[in-house]
Amino acid sequence: MRYLRFIHNGKPVLGVRTETGVHIVGERDLESLLAEGIDLASFGHGAVRFGDEVVVPEDAYLPLMQRPTKVICVGLNYSEHIDESPYDRPDYPTLFPRFNSSLTAHGKPIVVPRISDSLDYEGEMAVVLKSGGRHISREDALNCVAGYSIFNEASVREYQFKSPQWTVGKNFDDTGAFGPELVTADELPAGGKGLLLETKVNGEVVQSASTDTMIFDVATLISTISEAISLEAGDVIVSGTPSGVGFGMDPKRYLKHGDTVEVSIEGIGTLRNKVVDELK
Amino acid sequence: MRYLRFIHNGKPVLGVRTETGVHIVGERDLESLLAEGIDLASFGHGAVRFGDEVVVPEDAYLPLMQRPTKVICVGLNYSEHIDESPYDRPDYPTLFPRFNSSLTAHGKPIVVPRISDSLDYEGEMAVVLKSGGRHISREDALNCVAGYSIFNEASVREYQFKSPQWTVGKNFDDTGAFGPELVTADELPAGGKGLLLETKVNGEVVQSASTDTMIFDVATLISTISEAISLEAGDVIVSGTPSGVGFGMDPKRYLKHGDTVEVSIEGIGTLRNKVVDELK
Repeated sequence: MRYLRFIHNGKPVLGVRTETGVHIVGERDLESLLAEGIDLASFGHGAVRFGDEVVVPEDAYLPLMQRPTKVICVGLNYSEHIDESPYDRPDYPTLFPRFNSSLTAHGKPIVVPRISDSLDYEGEMAVVLKSGGRHISREDALNCVAGYSIFNEASVREYQFKSPQWTVGKNFDDTGAFGPELVTADELPAGGKGLLLETKVNGEVVQSASTDTMIFDVATLISTISEAISLEAGDVIVSGTPSGVGFGMDPKRYLKHGDTVEVSIEGIGTLRNKVVDELK
Repeated sequence: MRYLRFIHNGKPVLGVRTETGVHIVGERDLESLLAEGIDLASFGHGAVRFGDEVVVPEDAYLPLMQRPTKVICVGLNYSEHIDESPYDRPDYPTLFPRFNSSLTAHGKPIVVPRISDSLDYEGEMAVVLKSGGRHISREDALNCVAGYSIFNEASVREYQFKSPQWTVGKNFDDTGAFGPELVTADELPAGGKGLLLETKVNGEVVQSASTDTMIFDVATLISTISEAISLEAGDVIVSGTPSGVGFGMDPKRYLKHGDTVEVSIEGIGTLRNKVVDELK
């Protein structure tokens, strides 16, 4: 089942997309459904039979979730991307946060901040959890996954490297595009494995890799993180970007006002955002 | 005014402490009061006059806030602490996150995880925001502060340095002690300046510094963070630790089961936690 959040008649609603169109499920958000332990793989069925069918304009989308309990991003998780970074191949996942204030939606602008012109794309697969806990075994880990979506983890490189921690460069407002849809885990290969991830800037392919080439796969990430941190329903793990970012090019190629970035993952969809300058 | 959260007759309540004792204000939490823009400097007055006066046992405290909108921690913000770290003095604040899952209360145990024995204390002043926004000037910054509290930003050093990002070592469950009280800004020097911060382990002073010796003061932190990130009512900035952490000693001295850590800040109070081993 495929869920999306959007504005309809002035209100935020939850929809389910089928082959024929989008059906409104109600006004609840995914965060509250997940917190209650509702099974998203079946929850939308009634709406598909009885809900209104509507057209969703691209500028009506909301971030798939606006208040996840936490967003844990993974860096350096594709080996060819490490080669274009200043870092060595890690033997432990490199984790950093996205604060909710940085999230934006499919169809909404990603913003070049007024204080830096070093905004870069990072196409990634996002993993949404339906349960959690501590000390989750690798074998049990995928039972925690509600579904998968797409993230453009857009990064202001100058600020990412202004201090030893990347946090600020990864958390500018309107840089974390999340959506357009959550695809429940039952409709995808276990662990979101073997899916082609592609990023395009103005139609040109700049990143292309299989999710199979992650260093730490989804089950390993969940298990490893939970050795330290309690995972919860509503948490999101953003699983890392493959090679091809603008920072790794010679000369570096950053996003600029008017560009369009699309991140596509096979079986999940396409997340599309225009790039605009922050208003002065 | 001094606020605290605790369990009373089996329910979480908000209290105000006066010179005579603790008065129950109601069942609302600070997060929701701050989100509504309620002025905490005056809100508790009615309760002080009419609320029940109660005794709060040390094991009844809750984290001052359990679901802050975000917790932004600052590293390397006291110069003598930088000298004991592997880093250079920064010209930009080093930011990293605390996820809410790591928070614990005054009087509750701080936990040595079963996978590492390298747990270390970090006494810090916490700044709770009542408003926010973007591009806040240094001059306006302190108008965003609801009040100040204390944080023991306990860190699992082995995991902090397992990858280029500190996130995991800073986010083990039950390592972020927050409380015991929020002191509203009107009762303290502007910016929480000039307050003596002391950390004791088993009664021995291990950290002692004035908050005046921060490299980036509270107003600068708020202004600088807001160049990138929208700040909100309910956000918490944990402003960094001075020198004297166990990691900087020779030999390194980590916390162990049975230790007691106390972080005191002049005019704010004392945050006290026992250290216990995680159950196997």
